[in-house]
Amino acid sequence: MADIKKVLIANRGEIALRVIHTCKELGIQTVAVYSRPDAHSPHVLHADEAVFIGEAASSESYLVIDKIIDAVKQTGADAVHPGYGFLSENAGFAERCKKENIIFIGPEPKAIRLMGDKTEARELVTQAGIPTPPGLKSELKDIEEARSVADDIGYPILVKAAAGGGGKGMRIVHKKEEFEASIKAAKSEARNAFGDDRIYIEKYLEEPRHVEFQIMADTHGNVLHVYDRECSVQRRHQKVIEEAPCALLTDELRADMAEAAIGAAKAVDYVGAGTIEFLVDKHLNFYFLEMNTRLQVEHPVTEMITGVDLVALQILVAEGKELPIKQEDLAINGHAIECRIYAEDPTENFLPSTGLLKKHRVPTGSGIRVDAGVEEGQQITINYDPMISKLSVHGPNREIARKRMLRALDEYEIAGCRTTIPFCEFTLKHPAFIEAKYDTHFVQDHFKPENMQEDQPDKDVALAASLLKFKKQSQPESEALLENGTGESALWWKNRKGN
Amino acid sequence: MADIKKVLIANRGEIALRVIHTCKELGIQTVAVYSRPDAHSPHVLHADEAVFIGEAASSESYLVIDKIIDAVKQTGADAVHPGYGFLSENAGFAERCKKENIIFIGPEPKAIRLMGDKTEARELVTQAGIPTPPGLKSELKDIEEARSVADDIGYPILVKAAAGGGGKGMRIVHKKEEFEASIKAAKSEARNAFGDDRIYIEKYLEEPRHVEFQIMADTHGNVLHVYDRECSVQRRHQKVIEEAPCALLTDELRADMAEAAIGAAKAVDYVGAGTIEFLVDKHLNFYFLEMNTRLQVEHPVTEMITGVDLVALQILVAEGKELPIKQEDLAINGHAIECRIYAEDPTENFLPSTGLLKKHRVPTGSGIRVDAGVEEGQQITINYDPMISKLSVHGPNREIARKRMLRALDEYEIAGCRTTIPFCEFTLKHPAFIEAKYDTHFVQDHFKPENMQEDQPDKDVALAASLLKFKKQSQPESEALLENGTGESALWWKNRKGN
Repeated sequence: MADIKKVLIANRGEIALRVIHTCKELGIQTVAVYSRPDAHSPHVLHADEAVFIGEAASSESYLVIDKIIDAVKQTGADAVHPGYGFLSENAGFAERCKKENIIFIGPEPKAIRLMGDKTEARELVTQAGIPTPPGLKSELKDIEEARSVADDIGYPILVKAAAGGGGKGMRIVHKKEEFEASIKAAKSEARNAFGDDRIYIEKYLEEPRHVEFQIMADTHGNVLHVYDRECSVQRRHQKVIEEAPCALLTDELRADMAEAAIGAAKAVDYVGAGTIEFLVDKHLNFYFLEMNTRLQVEHPVTEMITGVDLVALQILVAEGKELPIKQEDLAINGHAIECRIYAEDPTENFLPSTGLLKKHRVPTGSGIRVDAGVEEGQQITINYDPMISKLSVHGPNREIARKRMLRALDEYEIAGCRTTIPFCEFTLKHPAFIEAKYDTHFVQDHFKPENMQEDQPDKDVALAASLLKFKKQSQPESEALLENGTGESALWWKNRKGN
Repeated sequence: MADIKKVLIANRGEIALRVIHTCKELGIQTVAVYSRPDAHSPHVLHADEAVFIGEAASSESYLVIDKIIDAVKQTGADAVHPGYGFLSENAGFAERCKKENIIFIGPEPKAIRLMGDKTEARELVTQAGIPTPPGLKSELKDIEEARSVADDIGYPILVKAAAGGGGKGMRIVHKKEEFEASIKAAKSEARNAFGDDRIYIEKYLEEPRHVEFQIMADTHGNVLHVYDRECSVQRRHQKVIEEAPCALLTDELRADMAEAAIGAAKAVDYVGAGTIEFLVDKHLNFYFLEMNTRLQVEHPVTEMITGVDLVALQILVAEGKELPIKQEDLAINGHAIECRIYAEDPTENFLPSTGLLKKHRVPTGSGIRVDAGVEEGQQITINYDPMISKLSVHGPNREIARKRMLRALDEYEIAGCRTTIPFCEFTLKHPAFIEAKYDTHFVQDHFKPENMQEDQPDKDVALAASLLKFKKQSQPESEALLENGTGESALWWKNRKGN
């Protein structure tokens, strides 16, 4: 396969910019696509070319395969990077690219399809000898059989949609009496969300931790793992804080899970970047959860501890090249933490907090990485995921990384919307996080919004303050007023949180 | 010695913030000091406390030892970090701290004094067997003796001030006939600049490269080198672009120079962070140039390739602790480049370009570090060094680091003043830089301002554009105008440099 010369990124926001960055560094031209409200987004401004593909609704723009393919043809791009979300795990899109002779920077359609079907994936990895949570190994066909399996593995059990994701079509069943009603409710929700009402049941694990392995595979049969990430801090079944490596794993457990992850990837002849998600229970048993057949939101923490550019490897592999690194070249260097900075109100159950991003000053200095998809002066709308940025830090060990993250969160200035910053600060200061003894129930077990150190001033107060500052600096003659009025030497004590 | 609990940073700008960052991560309280125009500077905003110390002129604020000592006493700080510049290499200040029982985060006054006197330093290291450039080993006393030494080593020769730095009191003498006049001119300039007219002469090297070694030493006799930096890209004898490691050095040469650097540090019983600067000629002979007895501006590139926090080590050593790392723990990991982003006009011989920093959007993404001392809305004044920020990148090798830097420079948005960004882009794209075959004459030999890709729009145009964008985004109903006026799908080609 020939070298890729021009990549169209079928995505928006920070992940589109992320891909653009690596393309620029590799000397590859980039094409952005954008919906109407994204016309002046950073991913459009930083790409070499940009194509307008439709209105705000994803169903009229970022999810329309024909429009993406048209944009590829219009610009002469030879490859498509799907990012995450949108069409990234749509086997039909990958197939269409193949048919149109466009390189899809991702796995084969078959692998996407197999791993996209949660029950099929589970059967497949079970055959490969990889542990899955106790439960029905295939989709639920007979309610009586399911009831008897549920009795065997014991309550509480978990009912999940085969086509599922993001917690939709999922139910925890605490008692036998609730079983039938929960199954019905889950089926109905799954049908509405995915147009597919197949469900399955499994043991609801105690103190479950979400631990995942990054996989990278080429077309020459090389399959590497790029170590692990812990992603147990979640709200609404979605990750907010991730770290690499997982502090829970012993060397032995890490080796066992890595072997299972590579086995799962090999079971579908996987090619490209993928992630095997596991649940680890309090007895350190691990179970295959699912495989994501794309780049993960939280991939920066892996890049920070291994020095690998996962997007560059994705592109190399898509060009048909052999992976330039071997397993023995990879090692864990220090510790990395990522906080997803969402425009959400943690005091209101993480409800999106949309509006004009009036101020956006990112933290700077050593060991800090910011992946931002929006810029000061842009609107955060309800059309898409309300993520402002991903803030990642790297340090020589977990404790230094934790303190560095607190320092960075403290320095981060956002005005115009509420954010997850105070929640992240709460979490990073919580004993359960400090001791790395937390599970996916962290939010429900420990989070008390009233205990957050609320340092998010009212939107308009913050803006007023920032404008004032701007004005003052541009009119230095009025500055003496800011001192004690006398212009004399003054000791200026500041009241700041964390002192 | 006890643990340090509160550090006063006797400096401003990015280096004050840099020290604050590490203090926060170590749980140490911080005190900023500020002159009138710096009242709302980031270093003041991010410190736990701040003390006003006087008017704009450094001689009324940052250079006044009594005011700094008073601020320490007022706030109960137990240590002072001097940063670089200002009082950082003032032995009298270090001595005064000692007398007042304040921990000075730096070497002993004696080491500062010895290394501050360029002729004394040269004699000292010569005794330790470290090569110095051919020339007078001590200060010039007799003009006839000097003339005969000059004849011996051959023209061109270099005349330098003993108390010198920054190119002041320095003269290149090309011919015998110019010798006496040059000596007089240099003496007069040195007297004016330093109040000390002692000068010395040395061989003017061909194709000289500025290569330096980072040293770190504790009070227990451990002296480490933290590898090398190449700093040959200079304008007005001051560094603009630095890289680590130096691409010129073979393993053998690196080992020899490291040994010499450690020898020089040991010759003055050095404690803390210091830098041994060498000149390397085209035959790969190296000569001791001088020792800087403080943290260097360009220390981030060293931190990036070694993973070491030099400020944290400075603090540990100042607390009397043993260095927690040994030489064998240190290795070079990848390659790092730093560009100093100055508010200067490269088309006007790098004249400071002061004014209101109307826009400051720093580049983001993988492998990027920004150390900024100013914020959007602040004035860049003539009072201090016109540095806006230090932009550093890290990559697995030099070429990826170079491309990453170009990507980052391209993404960096500044409005309100001219900057060194186009000069940095010119340099990073120049064959001499790409091949790592450049010396300290790079600017005079290769730089043609007219060949810069001038992507710095006129200040006010840039601001207007940014305001327009802000306005458009906040009034989405008018956005359709930005498409082709019809609101139909439009292919938006952009004319951007570098395509």
